[in-house]
Amino acid sequence: MHDERLTAQLTFLIELDRLKRILRRTSLVGGDRRENSAEHSWHLAVMAMVLAEHANETINVLHTLKLLLVHDIVEIDAGDTFAYDVEANLDKEERERAAADRIFGLLPDDQRDELRALWEEFDARQTPEARFANALDRLMPSLQNYQNGGGTWRAAGVTQAAVYHRLHPIEEGSHALWSYVEAMLVDAAARGLIRA
Amino acid sequence: MHDERLTAQLTFLIELDRLKRILRRTSLVGGDRRENSAEHSWHLAVMAMVLAEHANETINVLHTLKLLLVHDIVEIDAGDTFAYDVEANLDKEERERAAADRIFGLLPDDQRDELRALWEEFDARQTPEARFANALDRLMPSLQNYQNGGGTWRAAGVTQAAVYHRLHPIEEGSHALWSYVEAMLVDAAARGLIRA
Repeated sequence: MHDERLTAQLTFLIELDRLKRILRRTSLVGGDRRENSAEHSWHLAVMAMVLAEHANETINVLHTLKLLLVHDIVEIDAGDTFAYDVEANLDKEERERAAADRIFGLLPDDQRDELRALWEEFDARQTPEARFANALDRLMPSLQNYQNGGGTWRAAGVTQAAVYHRLHPIEEGSHALWSYVEAMLVDAAARGLIRA
Repeated sequence: MHDERLTAQLTFLIELDRLKRILRRTSLVGGDRRENSAEHSWHLAVMAMVLAEHANETINVLHTLKLLLVHDIVEIDAGDTFAYDVEANLDKEERERAAADRIFGLLPDDQRDELRALWEEFDARQTPEARFANALDRLMPSLQNYQNGGGTWRAAGVTQAAVYHRLHPIEEGSHALWSYVEAMLVDAAARGLIRA
């Protein structure tokens, strides 16, 4: 017989398979299909491994990886909320809170509390790891949009001011990455990939 | 101007987007589409966070996550090799070595060496972290196949002996997980999900 703890852990892990069905607005490089939140989370985790040296503050890489691996799990119930959709963002917090209750609630209590705290920490951007993880979560879609001739910036007609507002928190996590993004945005605007 | 180091790192990270296009044999739970290697890698990394306590030996979780996040990157060039395809496995090593040269070679030298070593360590199964990471890489598809009424076991007509041979290394990483899998395989065989 297997203990309840392992059974609860595996129930949670099988439930996670559904994150592979949650589509983001951003497309893969090449632009032919939308990215899902599971593959996006993997991509951010490898970014954290490779780019950790560019964080403004000393970060614990394990903790940063945990934040990134867990940050989108609530979307299984709450869906992906497009960063530039003002209306959908109004009830995002409430939808995601209910999702966290149900999904993390599948785990044994200690792990439920640990993963929920990671998700809340990511969103609050109050720790060095959360600031850096958030920077990566904003950097990657901007690289994809740039590679895709404007991507969602262009498809949604997002203004230059809105893109700056969305991406500026990258600076809180990494001056070096923000400096790279700023130069990229100047070029994207000059080439008409972002609306003035 | 941005330094060459950051440019090389971002070139590598953008190249990684292609792992989202590499399809494995295994399907998502529900069975309607094949899983890709990027979302699979994310799933294994969360598994490692949640199941680390079941490892036979004390493991460094950060190191285990790194092994799992990197273990399939060579498939961008080499493709996914089905575990039960004897012929395709004959030249797998050669194809993957060439892929590692090219893809990890996009990184600055120190990180090229670090990520390549992680990939080699995963495959060699000679460290506690590699043994546990390999156990998870075998466990997850077996859970998916079981959930999917046999999945690739059934579709490919794999025998019970072949499944045991493939999955038995789980025991090297975790007695607790192997004990769970053994019980599941007995049930799968009884229900005709695996060929006798």
